[in-house]
Amino acid sequence: MDRDWELFLLPYRQTVDELKVKLRGLRDMYVLRKEHGPIEFVTGRVKPINSILVKSKTRQIPLNELETEMEDIAGIRIMCPFVEDIHDVVDMLKSRNDLNAVYEKDYVTHKKESGYRSYHLICEYPVQLIDEVKVVLVEIQIRTLAMNFWASIEHSLNYKYQGEYPSEINNRLQKAAESAFQLDEEMSTIRDEIKGIQENYRFTKD
Amino acid sequence: MDRDWELFLLPYRQTVDELKVKLRGLRDMYVLRKEHGPIEFVTGRVKPINSILVKSKTRQIPLNELETEMEDIAGIRIMCPFVEDIHDVVDMLKSRNDLNAVYEKDYVTHKKESGYRSYHLICEYPVQLIDEVKVVLVEIQIRTLAMNFWASIEHSLNYKYQGEYPSEINNRLQKAAESAFQLDEEMSTIRDEIKGIQENYRFTKD
Amino acid sequence: MDRDWELFLLPYRQTVDELKVKLRGLRDMYVLRKEHGPIEFVTGRVKPINSILVKSKTRQIPLNELETEMEDIAGIRIMCPFVEDIHDVVDMLKSRNDLNAVYEKDYVTHKKESGYRSYHLICEYPVQLIDEVKVVLVEIQIRTLAMNFWASIEHSLNYKYQGEYPSEINNRLQKAAESAFQLDEEMSTIRDEIKGIQENYRFTKD
Amino acid sequence: MDRDWELFLLPYRQTVDELKVKLRGLRDMYVLRKEHGPIEFVTGRVKPINSILVKSKTRQIPLNELETEMEDIAGIRIMCPFVEDIHDVVDMLKSRNDLNAVYEKDYVTHKKESGYRSYHLICEYPVQLIDEVKVVLVEIQIRTLAMNFWASIEHSLNYKYQGEYPSEINNRLQKAAESAFQLDEEMSTIRDEIKGIQENYRFTKD
Repeated sequence: MDRDWELFLLPYRQTVDELKVKLRGLRDMYVLRKEHGPIEFVTGRVKPINSILVKSKTRQIPLNELETEMEDIAGIRIMCPFVEDIHDVVDMLKSRNDLNAVYEKDYVTHKKESGYRSYHLICEYPVQLIDEVKVVLVEIQIRTLAMNFWASIEHSLNYKYQGEYPSEINNRLQKAAESAFQLDEEMSTIRDEIKGIQENYRFTKD
Repeated sequence: MDRDWELFLLPYRQTVDELKVKLRGLRDMYVLRKEHGPIEFVTGRVKPINSILVKSKTRQIPLNELETEMEDIAGIRIMCPFVEDIHDVVDMLKSRNDLNAVYEKDYVTHKKESGYRSYHLICEYPVQLIDEVKVVLVEIQIRTLAMNFWASIEHSLNYKYQGEYPSEINNRLQKAAESAFQLDEEMSTIRDEIKGIQENYRFTKD
Repeated sequence: MDRDWELFLLPYRQTVDELKVKLRGLRDMYVLRKEHGPIEFVTGRVKPINSILVKSKTRQIPLNELETEMEDIAGIRIMCPFVEDIHDVVDMLKSRNDLNAVYEKDYVTHKKESGYRSYHLICEYPVQLIDEVKVVLVEIQIRTLAMNFWASIEHSLNYKYQGEYPSEINNRLQKAAESAFQLDEEMSTIRDEIKGIQENYRFTKD
Repeated sequence: MDRDWELFLLPYRQTVDELKVKLRGLRDMYVLRKEHGPIEFVTGRVKPINSILVKSKTRQIPLNELETEMEDIAGIRIMCPFVEDIHDVVDMLKSRNDLNAVYEKDYVTHKKESGYRSYHLICEYPVQLIDEVKVVLVEIQIRTLAMNFWASIEHSLNYKYQGEYPSEINNRLQKAAESAFQLDEEMSTIRDEIKGIQENYRFTKD
């Protein structure tokens, strides 16, 4: 049974590995061109088996329809320095030949009630296996570092309270969401100063 | 000449590579213990030759005294989820047998006038070469994600204006520093809720 | 000038990175299917600038024709356990959608006078850059471990003697080529015993 | 239960990761010095849980004595270009401060009846965990590429026949062992020619 899962997940793992190399490569291209790069860093993961099982129950997705109905088994996350970079990254992804954007959820313009902000692009990605090409779904989340930080805290609390926050926690989360939003705002006002600077500001470049 | 630099920098590169593996390993240990981990992620770099040359000029460090006088040729950066984690990480580093803390600069408690916050620990690290053990200096910077974000923006602007900011830019930077500080504050009030949660909230773990 | 070279080489670096991930992924797929895998390991490199300059002189390739005339700026090497695996790998590569085989040199069936054996497949690979797709040439060498070992020794001696070996060295190289060939032969007679074994024999799998 | 195994294996994983970085670093140091390097490549693995269970049964090692009685839970393998390099590597390992050689098995001078050749160095390695230093055993195998190739084939057949080879298979394995030995011999006669060549012959260096 374990082995079956491993075989099922293999194209998703390969998709995540390939997209990480491809998108991190883009980041380096911006550095080399000495341009402001809209990609700060890129992470990826395959959804753990346990999380797949829980979600298939909650969302009532039969296990034999996972491939078409669960869009985030392969997940990529792209962190951007500025809010404005998010749309540039989305446009760049849509223009790629090796990806096909299927639909998108813009939680940046329309944040969730919880305070969650992020842009989700669900794509089809054709991955070459030993003797066939398989098209898998992959969810690409694009967000700023501040959005990411808030989301990771919220994810953690959500796990503890299963979404039923005490009102005090809820207030704190809302306040933190506002602070994260404010930080992004302040950063954006500085953005034009950064654009066109002939040197990337990332740590690896010193 | 290039080659000489490569030989000179080799023990620093090795130090950075070893410390990245060691500190990232610690991060995984916390995940496995299902404890809140004080290490969010770890990066490292060796100072580019050009930056070494510029700094040696500015600080009047003769090139033959780089080994003892320039403490950040090898650089490690540890990002923490919460401000409180910073001191835990510092204590943990000081207790290690394979590192020797030489001195420290606490820009978290005493932020720089510019708004810069971060904890710097300068350490001696013995690195095993082919036929000798060499002790090299390494600067370990410990900071939150919000501190890191602000610092990278400031680094970038500093590059453009060489430290002589127009007052408008200066105001913006100050405001952004306040927002970053506020975000850390809000996060810290949530911290106790997170501690003890039996699941790490990092993306790779879903 | 250095920077120009970096920009020129960037699509080649990206090609090598992507193909390494893709081909190493295939290797893992065989392991997971518990089948004998024809890929033992995969390496890749971008030709150093210096080697490009030397070769462009020797082969009289003008620097502005490198893209079309120098086929090994991007290089991938695939090591196979058995001689018979080489053709399986070549067929698999030719059937891929993300690669286009342009021509091939079969130094396995027709070894070079020097004793060199290896299969070279020259391919076009479309690599997605920031705002365009660029088609680059990549040379994929497929060989057994014994062929690889001999080739690396010969490469090293060639460097020393510039191809003009003293006859004693030449004799030794010929003898070593024969031993390498014999090892491959002995291994092939054992091959049918290995095929179908329900466990991969690679070290990582213990 | 799974989790307990993960916790038990964690210091072994960390040990393997650290030693890979350290030993691969040495390899690069030789390249940079433009000297013949005795290390061709380095691999590492943690013994799979299943293999630990089988071996503990076969060797009658109680599970609570694994730490002191099973010496190859952490395993490192170093491949050398020439037979003569093996002893250089062993000496270098023994002189390191961060390793303590406990005992060794020289199957190079005294090959096993099966034809197996390799040098095993069993070492203690102190690994820094979150709040303690743990000393773990690690088995470092040092061998040539030809020895490694033969061993991987034998490992695979052993798995199929459980050590009870039909005499025909046995003959083939013996012949292959002789070919592998011969290849090493031929290579060694060439060795003096290689030594002192001012360029490393590894693929990555072109």
